[in-house]
Amino acid sequence: MAYDTDAVRRVLDAAKGRDSLTAPEGRAVVEAYGIRTPGEGLATNPEDAVAVATAIGFPVVLKIVSPDILHKTEAGGVIVGVADGAAAADAYRTIVRNAREYDADARIVGVQVQEQLTSGHEVIVGAVTDPTFGKIVAFGLGGVLVEVLKDVTFRLAPTSLETARSMVDGIKAAEILRGVRGAEPADPEALADLITKVSDLVTDFPEIAEVDLNPVLATSTGATAVDVRILVDPAAAKTPVRFGRDEILASMNRIMRPAAVAVIGASGEDGKIGNSVMKNLVNGGYRGRIHPVNPKAADILGLPAVKSITDVPGDVDVAIFAIPAKFVPQALEEAGAKGVAGAILIPSGFGETGNHDLQDEVVEIARKHGVRILGPNIYGYYYTPEHLSATFCTPYDVPGGVALSSQSGGIGMAILGFSRSAQMGVSAIVGVGNKADIDEDDLLTFFEDDPHTHLIAMHLEDLKDGRAFAETAQRVSKRKPVIVLKAGRTSAGARAAGSHTGALAGDDAVYDDILRESGVVRAPGLNDMLEYARGVPLLPTPQGENVVIITGAGGSGVLLSDACVDNGLSLMHIPGDLDEAFRAFIPPFGAAGNPVDITGGEPPSTYRNTVALGLSDPRIHSLILGYWHTIVTPPMTFAELVVDVVEEFRARGIHKPVVASLSGDVEVEEASEFLYRHGIVAYPYTTEKPVAVLGAKYRWARAAGLL
Amino acid sequence: MAYDTDAVRRVLDAAKGRDSLTAPEGRAVVEAYGIRTPGEGLATNPEDAVAVATAIGFPVVLKIVSPDILHKTEAGGVIVGVADGAAAADAYRTIVRNAREYDADARIVGVQVQEQLTSGHEVIVGAVTDPTFGKIVAFGLGGVLVEVLKDVTFRLAPTSLETARSMVDGIKAAEILRGVRGAEPADPEALADLITKVSDLVTDFPEIAEVDLNPVLATSTGATAVDVRILVDPAAAKTPVRFGRDEILASMNRIMRPAAVAVIGASGEDGKIGNSVMKNLVNGGYRGRIHPVNPKAADILGLPAVKSITDVPGDVDVAIFAIPAKFVPQALEEAGAKGVAGAILIPSGFGETGNHDLQDEVVEIARKHGVRILGPNIYGYYYTPEHLSATFCTPYDVPGGVALSSQSGGIGMAILGFSRSAQMGVSAIVGVGNKADIDEDDLLTFFEDDPHTHLIAMHLEDLKDGRAFAETAQRVSKRKPVIVLKAGRTSAGARAAGSHTGALAGDDAVYDDILRESGVVRAPGLNDMLEYARGVPLLPTPQGENVVIITGAGGSGVLLSDACVDNGLSLMHIPGDLDEAFRAFIPPFGAAGNPVDITGGEPPSTYRNTVALGLSDPRIHSLILGYWHTIVTPPMTFAELVVDVVEEFRARGIHKPVVASLSGDVEVEEASEFLYRHGIVAYPYTTEKPVAVLGAKYRWARAAGLL
Repeated sequence: MAYDTDAVRRVLDAAKGRDSLTAPEGRAVVEAYGIRTPGEGLATNPEDAVAVATAIGFPVVLKIVSPDILHKTEAGGVIVGVADGAAAADAYRTIVRNAREYDADARIVGVQVQEQLTSGHEVIVGAVTDPTFGKIVAFGLGGVLVEVLKDVTFRLAPTSLETARSMVDGIKAAEILRGVRGAEPADPEALADLITKVSDLVTDFPEIAEVDLNPVLATSTGATAVDVRILVDPAAAKTPVRFGRDEILASMNRIMRPAAVAVIGASGEDGKIGNSVMKNLVNGGYRGRIHPVNPKAADILGLPAVKSITDVPGDVDVAIFAIPAKFVPQALEEAGAKGVAGAILIPSGFGETGNHDLQDEVVEIARKHGVRILGPNIYGYYYTPEHLSATFCTPYDVPGGVALSSQSGGIGMAILGFSRSAQMGVSAIVGVGNKADIDEDDLLTFFEDDPHTHLIAMHLEDLKDGRAFAETAQRVSKRKPVIVLKAGRTSAGARAAGSHTGALAGDDAVYDDILRESGVVRAPGLNDMLEYARGVPLLPTPQGENVVIITGAGGSGVLLSDACVDNGLSLMHIPGDLDEAFRAFIPPFGAAGNPVDITGGEPPSTYRNTVALGLSDPRIHSLILGYWHTIVTPPMTFAELVVDVVEEFRARGIHKPVVASLSGDVEVEEASEFLYRHGIVAYPYTTEKPVAVLGAKYRWARAAGLL
Repeated sequence: MAYDTDAVRRVLDAAKGRDSLTAPEGRAVVEAYGIRTPGEGLATNPEDAVAVATAIGFPVVLKIVSPDILHKTEAGGVIVGVADGAAAADAYRTIVRNAREYDADARIVGVQVQEQLTSGHEVIVGAVTDPTFGKIVAFGLGGVLVEVLKDVTFRLAPTSLETARSMVDGIKAAEILRGVRGAEPADPEALADLITKVSDLVTDFPEIAEVDLNPVLATSTGATAVDVRILVDPAAAKTPVRFGRDEILASMNRIMRPAAVAVIGASGEDGKIGNSVMKNLVNGGYRGRIHPVNPKAADILGLPAVKSITDVPGDVDVAIFAIPAKFVPQALEEAGAKGVAGAILIPSGFGETGNHDLQDEVVEIARKHGVRILGPNIYGYYYTPEHLSATFCTPYDVPGGVALSSQSGGIGMAILGFSRSAQMGVSAIVGVGNKADIDEDDLLTFFEDDPHTHLIAMHLEDLKDGRAFAETAQRVSKRKPVIVLKAGRTSAGARAAGSHTGALAGDDAVYDDILRESGVVRAPGLNDMLEYARGVPLLPTPQGENVVIITGAGGSGVLLSDACVDNGLSLMHIPGDLDEAFRAFIPPFGAAGNPVDITGGEPPSTYRNTVALGLSDPRIHSLILGYWHTIVTPPMTFAELVVDVVEEFRARGIHKPVVASLSGDVEVEEASEFLYRHGIVAYPYTTEKPVAVLGAKYRWARAAGLL
């Protein structure tokens, strides 16, 4: 149906200056969007109440209507189960008396008389204006129990019908709505329809800050919003400024692949940041032009220095700032005038130390000149395809397909150390620091098209514009896995709660739902993010959900199965013919089924035959290997045979993810490294990690629609 | 109140041969234990129904009574909300007609007329006979929603009032029972009392297999069991045979500290298991007498061989079997006659390959001779204080305080490799394999008093006698941490469900509750078990809950805070004077509070001063350090200063747990190892692991009553 936007506009205009709508106003607004509400009428005296109630039919509920009373129950302003006319008149009088006692100055418009619905599932549908994501819709089961268990799910508004259906199906207690123990089910279509209407309403009228339909009664034939609360706030209509995709790419391409960089504050003195940056550029092997800028030096590291960036002959793409914060504005004016695309602000002393004015000032200067800022308060960035180490840390030189970013310098250093230690091939490591300008969605936009990048992993503590990130991630994650470590997961969401939905929208619950909907794979911790980044790109994309465990140790098989369940992987049900095929290779007391337990003490040929079978049968999509160290098949023998058989199948065009857990004496460490180097994600002394990496691959592949 | 056990006995006697009690029988049984049930009476015709209902007071519920109809609702045998006499007569007729249609042969005793309770919280209280733990009681919120969410908790029966209270408080939705949004709270004492009564009932009458009080209506003044279902089964009264503590210790002391061992099937031939065992005994440095037994060799590895254990001069404590399974019974007879305390059955080919008869046979032989069996189907065992490597794997020689056991050989090898790689000091590594005899509670009993063992870590897939384990662990964990990795966590509990409580008692939920109640720290995975085993004994027991994070990287601080919440640790609220004291050491733009953010780029003195303050202030109980690699304070400088200051305080008698997360380039790996060697649990590239180990220490200390 078409929405009656004029009706909503009239109500909102009439409510200007207030921060909430009255119940009748709220009802008028949602009815204009085709949302069913109970029969009701406004009574302004006891006789009225009797007449309205009689017209609606008993039982009815009576509720105070006053712009000054938001918490009606607290004010004694609600009476339910009013069964006849006499009771209706009494209830009217009681409510008005209670309201006056609660707040003698409250303006009382009257008493709302409402049809009392007696059956259906209580659910809550709402919308709030999230500081990170903007308009979001919420759906959950209602009632006291669910309020305690906080079983609610969130999506960006506007939402499609399909997404709204995923909300109805996505709460933990979804089974209840399908009708258990013979109870009447709720109509999922009616609920999905209601959710999209609420999401359209807040999208069309962004000054609506919050909508709270609580409870909604859902039956097998429809859904009725019993109580409507709407908060309005002109500030809720504000949206952040954004750059277009082409603008972002134009800047980011020059920043990541500069033909010339200037180092403002370059220094020949050991221990200075401006010296470390120069050394890293030179020693890192950057082949573009490097211009040290220093008013007092003639040359630095053998390169001619200039007094100001203005004096550089020719164009400069990137200016790296290695000077104290207070000197940045002037130098940025000069860099802007020179036409740089990016200003890399290493110095601290901006927003993170409370100096927001200085940070705002440099952003303003940058905007004026069309310069994008990375930072401030960062270690810099690396882009290995250009051998570019624009940082005061140490150079990094193992090229590869993983792009990483971090909001914190400490985490950036952990990324660097882990990468070097694990010899992880990296395309880029970027510090975003205070994110005064360039943030994760700018990076995503660049990495999306960067042919050197196959996976993006990001550490973040917040998002400046969560909606821009979600929309970009949604697109990028279809092509490349996006891993996110969201720090501050557990901080109590200290949001001022103006409504039920608001109170339920704790920061992390919203992040979790919206990141998942965007196809992002969320890492539970720092080490997980690093391991996913290292392992996920090595694994080919699985062609289906059938995972098979082949193990030499029954004990590992049990733990690997646990890990599969923990990571949402499906252990394949092995059909009879395949079971027989496996049995042909394993001892009679071994177990086929899944895990395939080849038993300990088997020779290399048993591992080889079963792994080859797993790779050759098209019904199997992924393999998890559990190795048990024995004299008969030592660790390196196992590793070499697995690499051999996997490479044989790769040569035939058969690519399946293979991960391995190695149990044994210390030689399994070398064997695991050998396997890893050959694209088999393998770990010693853990059954959890290889399965977690495979699980991350699957989560991505599912979200990207590849399964 | 005293229980009327005679009344219960009469009902049970009358029900002999049946597997369930009728509703009136069930009611009589629980009433004999002082459990309140609704007013009710049996009607055998419609007029009766009217009379009984009138006496009880309306509304009433009518329910079919038939020994042949267990699922009353399904049979159309329940009508609720019967409001007056005419309705009662109608309901009687309807129910009997429905029952006849449902099962024409059902014996119909009559119709139960029951008081219909209209208020209170619906809860479920029950008891089942668990195959692992025996009698257990269950408590949960009732109703459809909770059935879906499975919010139930379990304890061993009999249970104390205090433990019963912990059940009422321990479910996820406990808040509901305390009364939210002005709802009437349930009386927790009445519920705890009801739980203990049910637990006493099944303890006193072990042939009661299951009790299901569902729903129980709980109000602020009491609790009433509305529906009672009781299943009986003589087999439910069986309890496993147990050894006494002194018996266990007498055997285990000889097994772990033998003066003489015989190797049955000792061999001089490389690659034979009997050869590996001999080499490991000799090369491992075992100083007791070693007797190779081999009918064909004169000497093995320079030691004189005997044809049979019977020929060994003097006593033998342990016989290690390295011969095929089929030869074990005869050799065990001889070993038994020789008076060995322990038979270490390395060979496979017993229960694990389906050969249960052979396994039963050897157990019988062992029992006859008073021999305890370790295995069969194991790698053997290590006990480093005696330099004893009674295994075909490689010797292990780093002595220390950790005792480990595994049910699987594969996991045993992972333990060995991890221990060697991490240089983890170990007192014992024991394979329990099929657990035909010696199991985890025998080991716990030995390690409890073993002065060399300070922590016990166990991998297990099942428990032969969960109750014996729980009771032993309860005692041992008061003195030493007990870490358990329970494999098979996620296997669908394929229990035949005869009742609601039975259906809810999934294997893992029961394990989880009962292990926790026994003071056991459960490790979520293999690597966690190994890291807890390594780290927990190094940390001193904290004196209180106040944890403080001191970090050089704000980003690490946020992730460490997340990890604290994940691991149930309390970030101390820093009082004003302490805040000032920290501020004196850190830059003005650093953040005091908790985490204490000293900011990056600080010199070693800032780390030193803040760590010293954390150690010296008695209100702080544990420290978590977040290090950020900088040129000003390189990794080893940080590590050395931390060790220095921690040792300074240790010398003054101040012992607090200190853990650290190191972010930086690869040098942080060496720094982490240096810290670990000095008792500071430190890891590179992860904020999660150090906090998880500290969390494990806290979980243990709380359960042991040390906090």
